[in-house]
Amino acid sequence: MSRIFNFYSGPAVLPPSVLERARVGLTDFAGTRMSVMEISHRSDEFIALLRSGEQRLRALLHIPGHYSVFFLQGGASLQFSMVPMNFLGKAVADYVITGVWGEKAAKAAAPFGNVRQISLMTEDRYRRAPGDGELRFSEDASYVHYVSNETIDGIEFDHDLEAGSVPVICDASSNILSKPIDVEKYAFIYAGAQKNIGPSGVTVVIIRNDLLERSHGPAPLLNYLSYTSADSMPNTPNTWGVYIIDLVLEWLQNEGGLQVLEERNMRKARLLYDAVDGSDGFYWGTAEAASRSRMNVTFRLPNADLEELFCREAKTEGLVGLRGHRSAGGIRASIYNAFPMEGVERLIEFMKDFADNNRP
Amino acid sequence: MSRIFNFYSGPAVLPPSVLERARVGLTDFAGTRMSVMEISHRSDEFIALLRSGEQRLRALLHIPGHYSVFFLQGGASLQFSMVPMNFLGKAVADYVITGVWGEKAAKAAAPFGNVRQISLMTEDRYRRAPGDGELRFSEDASYVHYVSNETIDGIEFDHDLEAGSVPVICDASSNILSKPIDVEKYAFIYAGAQKNIGPSGVTVVIIRNDLLERSHGPAPLLNYLSYTSADSMPNTPNTWGVYIIDLVLEWLQNEGGLQVLEERNMRKARLLYDAVDGSDGFYWGTAEAASRSRMNVTFRLPNADLEELFCREAKTEGLVGLRGHRSAGGIRASIYNAFPMEGVERLIEFMKDFADNNRP
Repeated sequence: MSRIFNFYSGPAVLPPSVLERARVGLTDFAGTRMSVMEISHRSDEFIALLRSGEQRLRALLHIPGHYSVFFLQGGASLQFSMVPMNFLGKAVADYVITGVWGEKAAKAAAPFGNVRQISLMTEDRYRRAPGDGELRFSEDASYVHYVSNETIDGIEFDHDLEAGSVPVICDASSNILSKPIDVEKYAFIYAGAQKNIGPSGVTVVIIRNDLLERSHGPAPLLNYLSYTSADSMPNTPNTWGVYIIDLVLEWLQNEGGLQVLEERNMRKARLLYDAVDGSDGFYWGTAEAASRSRMNVTFRLPNADLEELFCREAKTEGLVGLRGHRSAGGIRASIYNAFPMEGVERLIEFMKDFADNNRP
Repeated sequence: MSRIFNFYSGPAVLPPSVLERARVGLTDFAGTRMSVMEISHRSDEFIALLRSGEQRLRALLHIPGHYSVFFLQGGASLQFSMVPMNFLGKAVADYVITGVWGEKAAKAAAPFGNVRQISLMTEDRYRRAPGDGELRFSEDASYVHYVSNETIDGIEFDHDLEAGSVPVICDASSNILSKPIDVEKYAFIYAGAQKNIGPSGVTVVIIRNDLLERSHGPAPLLNYLSYTSADSMPNTPNTWGVYIIDLVLEWLQNEGGLQVLEERNMRKARLLYDAVDGSDGFYWGTAEAASRSRMNVTFRLPNADLEELFCREAKTEGLVGLRGHRSAGGIRASIYNAFPMEGVERLIEFMKDFADNNRP
């Protein structure tokens, strides 16, 4: 049977070499003859792993020393509440909304203070990210929040959003590590691991220390300062998750870093969008060209029945996870860092055949 | 080299057969030819896994239908805050404190309302749990909270605490599934997975539906009602963690269930405490006899230097993780469900030799 190509939007495909190497840590981590899941989070071996993961992330993203890095739990969704609990205060926070995740973040923040929604929705759907410099933000806002890639409608910022002196907080769950970014343009970046970083159950937080110092979360686990001191693990981290993340980050380093990944990701996305655009209208993309996501390629077919047939037939060919989010419909091909070019080529072949066989 | 015996207090030893079986799910889960970490949490395969885990837990603990079961993130430590956020309200909550975890829970609750601490501390240490019926609780308390086993001082309740009409909320992180319990005596049981259930990064919550309905947490991820509807996963679960939990629960079922485990755990603990008590005072237990934990056997040696030597020499014999918690000192042998009798026997041999060689 042919190889499986996994287009799931997250949890998503991992590098095969990472899964291969994880066999070791499953039963004999770092020569302990114990599983990485069986060792204390305060053991020398696990502390070394945590430091390794942090150092690799710092190296890949060029994170400066005045930023802290944490591996938390609860996903980006818990950050939707923790961010306003810690930083909203009495001022307004501006939420730039280019998709469903931005909507969720704004909705979760509303109980904690004054939230201004800057929505890019047009005609009931999201089709674009704002241009560089297009938006004006509230003076003296606590922060500006945005989602750098929206997985459901496939909308991605092609620039780091800037807001002058207002701290920028970014949910980068679905495109972190897919390209170099300028971390110093952000006060706070967070990302659920389950797209480009590792398995679900870990959230990476990168926070500038001056913002960190202003954390006022109401409970130990909900206040970022609890995670600061070297000795301080206020709860037991997801140790297996941190292990896999370290392996994924090592893989990224071995591949050549984020510049290499960006070129690869651009090539994959361009091929796929070209196949959409070159189908004489059988397939059509939902996002405006400049805002098309490199991570989640969304497109439609002439009707919903054909979309359903497309997903079913693709699956029998080993192309799994192409059904669009239930709220959006259509097709979504998620092609994160670990997704291979070969899978993109296979999908394009399938698209051509399917269009030929089903053109009205 | 001899076999390793893992006495870590958590994350802790897992059944070898579970680790063996996990090799399959690492690369080919449920015939998908994908890792369980790579499939969508909304895929049929993962939904089936989640249901399987819940059903096995219900079967093992005889959880009645009017209780809900969730697999959350954030550990028991996040529950320390979520419980009062959802249920403390304007009344008082009684916190029975028999160790450091009970202290932490009470401290985390304090910002959210009126907390009454019922401490069993004597002379700066915890040495016992209350007897059945010994305590009196506040009339009209929102709830009574207690920790059924305290890992640091090795203090365990030998009965289900009862509080009449007041809801009982129990942190059972370190002894859940080690013996049968009467779930109907509890309104709410929670447990970090990393002792008897699986790896770190998952918290099991068992909640009576009438209490669940009264949840008033201030944010989606912090309100238990968000986790109720079948369709509702307000964040992506720790999918690998749920997978390992399902395997551990299956192992428990195959071993014969909780009655069998309880007998085995009693036998292991009795042997070890007998070795302490039969050492002519070289070793001495810190907990009162009736409150001795079956999960965490804590004892002291004549002085701290000998304790340090004990840990170092034990480690060279493959007996790992025996150092007591840094706040307590001494020796702690954690012997959860998956810890084998053979390891207890090896430790007892070592203790005899060590006492013979180091008796003052």
